[in-house]
Amino acid sequence: MSAAETVKFVLTEADLPTHWYNLAADLPTLPPPPIHPGTGEPVGPADLEPVFPMELILQEVSRERWIAIPGPVLDVYRLWRPTPLFRARRLERVLGTPARIYYKYEGVSPAGSHKPNTAVAQAYYNKQAGVKRLTTETGAGQWGSSLAMACAFFGMELKVYMVRASYLQKPYRRILMETWGAQCVPSPSPDTASGRRFYEQDPEHPGSLGIAISEAVEDAASRADTKYSLGSVLNHVLLHQTVIGLEALRQFELAGDYPDVIFGCVGGGSNFAGLTFPFVRDKLQGKDVRIVAVEPAACPSLTRGVYTYDFGDTARTTPLLKMHTLGHTFIPARIHAGGLRYHGMAPLVSHLYEHGLIEAIALPQTKVFEGAVLFARAEGIIPAPESAHAVRAAIDEARRCAETGEEKAILIGLSGHGHFDLAAYEAYLAGKLEDYEYPEEAVRQALAELPKVSG
Amino acid sequence: MSAAETVKFVLTEADLPTHWYNLAADLPTLPPPPIHPGTGEPVGPADLEPVFPMELILQEVSRERWIAIPGPVLDVYRLWRPTPLFRARRLERVLGTPARIYYKYEGVSPAGSHKPNTAVAQAYYNKQAGVKRLTTETGAGQWGSSLAMACAFFGMELKVYMVRASYLQKPYRRILMETWGAQCVPSPSPDTASGRRFYEQDPEHPGSLGIAISEAVEDAASRADTKYSLGSVLNHVLLHQTVIGLEALRQFELAGDYPDVIFGCVGGGSNFAGLTFPFVRDKLQGKDVRIVAVEPAACPSLTRGVYTYDFGDTARTTPLLKMHTLGHTFIPARIHAGGLRYHGMAPLVSHLYEHGLIEAIALPQTKVFEGAVLFARAEGIIPAPESAHAVRAAIDEARRCAETGEEKAILIGLSGHGHFDLAAYEAYLAGKLEDYEYPEEAVRQALAELPKVSG
Repeated sequence: MSAAETVKFVLTEADLPTHWYNLAADLPTLPPPPIHPGTGEPVGPADLEPVFPMELILQEVSRERWIAIPGPVLDVYRLWRPTPLFRARRLERVLGTPARIYYKYEGVSPAGSHKPNTAVAQAYYNKQAGVKRLTTETGAGQWGSSLAMACAFFGMELKVYMVRASYLQKPYRRILMETWGAQCVPSPSPDTASGRRFYEQDPEHPGSLGIAISEAVEDAASRADTKYSLGSVLNHVLLHQTVIGLEALRQFELAGDYPDVIFGCVGGGSNFAGLTFPFVRDKLQGKDVRIVAVEPAACPSLTRGVYTYDFGDTARTTPLLKMHTLGHTFIPARIHAGGLRYHGMAPLVSHLYEHGLIEAIALPQTKVFEGAVLFARAEGIIPAPESAHAVRAAIDEARRCAETGEEKAILIGLSGHGHFDLAAYEAYLAGKLEDYEYPEEAVRQALAELPKVSG
Repeated sequence: MSAAETVKFVLTEADLPTHWYNLAADLPTLPPPPIHPGTGEPVGPADLEPVFPMELILQEVSRERWIAIPGPVLDVYRLWRPTPLFRARRLERVLGTPARIYYKYEGVSPAGSHKPNTAVAQAYYNKQAGVKRLTTETGAGQWGSSLAMACAFFGMELKVYMVRASYLQKPYRRILMETWGAQCVPSPSPDTASGRRFYEQDPEHPGSLGIAISEAVEDAASRADTKYSLGSVLNHVLLHQTVIGLEALRQFELAGDYPDVIFGCVGGGSNFAGLTFPFVRDKLQGKDVRIVAVEPAACPSLTRGVYTYDFGDTARTTPLLKMHTLGHTFIPARIHAGGLRYHGMAPLVSHLYEHGLIEAIALPQTKVFEGAVLFARAEGIIPAPESAHAVRAAIDEARRCAETGEEKAILIGLSGHGHFDLAAYEAYLAGKLEDYEYPEEAVRQALAELPKVSG
């Protein structure tokens, strides 16, 4: 090992972004608006008021390029931000590649992922609006635990509906939520009408993000003191995540480099958007950069889904969103990357994909974990199963560079650590990790249940 | 919540210490030397050569004040060092205290604790000496996982003997070791003569650090390609940890403050020593600072042990160390702070305690977890059960300040996060955490088996 393999680009607090970047300001065309399923008309602020505070609704439709981050939100960000950008020289050496590999690491937050970037903002705006209690859904638990931490900071109550497959597979994330003071129940639960529909058929129902969203929205809509908080998909959530990419841009300036290709994992799309939207802005201005979304083969909404209007949840309670979807009734296999088990894709990310501004690939989970272990042994950090999708795609790219001799700069969005996912690593190391075929028939059935809407 | 509660003191890489601080250079009297149990004479370098490389043996007996940190070790340190010092304003607000509470956070390392500070150094010196394979023991697994990571960086094999109680209680730390490529077996194991003694009596024997050390030493001594690595107690281990306190001193300069009282948890003593020895140096030069070691009530070597020569391990294979001990045959209760389940105390820490340079207190685990949850909800970070001992003691001190109005500056050594200890949090939150009486009779029996040595 040589004497200077660690190359870390650290920003000071003075470099912490003071504004979020809103891609809508720079897009030549906007994504089609959400539609009210009853009227077929675009939804307005009044339709969203029962579940969201007005400040977030305004951010959802804003076309301002820069939106100021409130002081109390910045103050919490400072606990772990700016996050580091690393040059992965040890990984490069192991791969024998001429590529320069970088990773932007969001696992330094107390919750261990990028999710607090929006959790803190959402808790703050709700608190300002006088809301006492929030509800939400969570898959792997990264989102639920992040919102639990944010609610602890702002003194708010929280009830989390956690996809039962993950609730059973990842007890540590539930305990994390409880340690921060939140209530966490497995979904489908008997606590809501949307949950009972599934729970009464099968109390062991593995659940899905779609069902959990239905439960959390129903709970919020039925109580005056409560609003709902979503961890991905919506424009305002993606907006809050752009601190990641804004910091990364400054760090690449420090490095005197610029990525040729960026890999980010996609479930609902917020981590990917947060990292890449500031680079999409550069691309719109002529910069040559490939931006690749990496999704699980078991839930490939971009690469195998249909671009159409669909519900965000299983019980059809949300507005219709124009997005790449596998159908709101599709229940993905129980892959360990629980945060990527969502039937749809953020409308903004879908729009970019449709217009050729980003690419997408899908990977099976054994390949993903093989990459994660290789990364962990080279760089020390244990990637979250979700982030490991981006890691594996980057490793494949770096290996291609080793064959062609291309000296590409590759950026990985390392959105979180895998400390609460070690059962998945154990299964991989024991050779017990399953891959899942593309669920062609299940997707066909789900797509047959898409709502009929023109647009 | 006010607009500026996050106060973080961040050093740049240029501020990373280039030397470790050796307290032996400044002590008016040195601790009595280790003694060979057969001859009753002080052990020399030749006695230690079968298990340690010469560079570490020389550090063990060095009286140089500053020992240069090798470039490749610094290079790995830079992955997460310098670590942050935080002002815990949110916790101060919750406690309504006029005290200023600070915490130095070592959980930012990929292994999640301070242990890599010495693991990386030890792996490096062994690698330089041509050693191919290391063995070690681990309690909670913080040490074993840290050494596993260090061995991955330097391309070395590692076998970890893990105290069975922790092996069963904390499967995630085992998986962590395996992910980094190490082999991990529960101790007592059938793989060594020292282990078989206990294993054959009871294959479910909960084990102890003392037994696990015996196994790892025996394994190393019996193979030419293998040496042994210890995670605490010895002088060179404490030395490597002083980067913590050296950074903290600079950070207090940045803060324009200085601690009136420092709390660190103690098991073998290395985290406590690493944080406090640079402050002990100040104290020897007249500075007024209280330094308090916090140990578990179930294993109180400083507050209830005897200061005498004892074996470091259960099978009586190590040299005799002059230390505070509960007796090398004492098996502590299965508290969740597995890293604090050691019968003895580092000779240097024992020496300071004997000479009144440091104080010690013991806390039961329910009080400790109560403090940890309060800290987590205020500051976000989930403390390791070990570190939570220091957290709880600091909270008690801050509450006393709230009564007296004293504006003390309190420093907590937050040696690691509790991501792999959430089962303990779950037990606490469910009201199922047990406290253990001081094991008076077991300690009396163990003390009756102390070796007879003058000195």
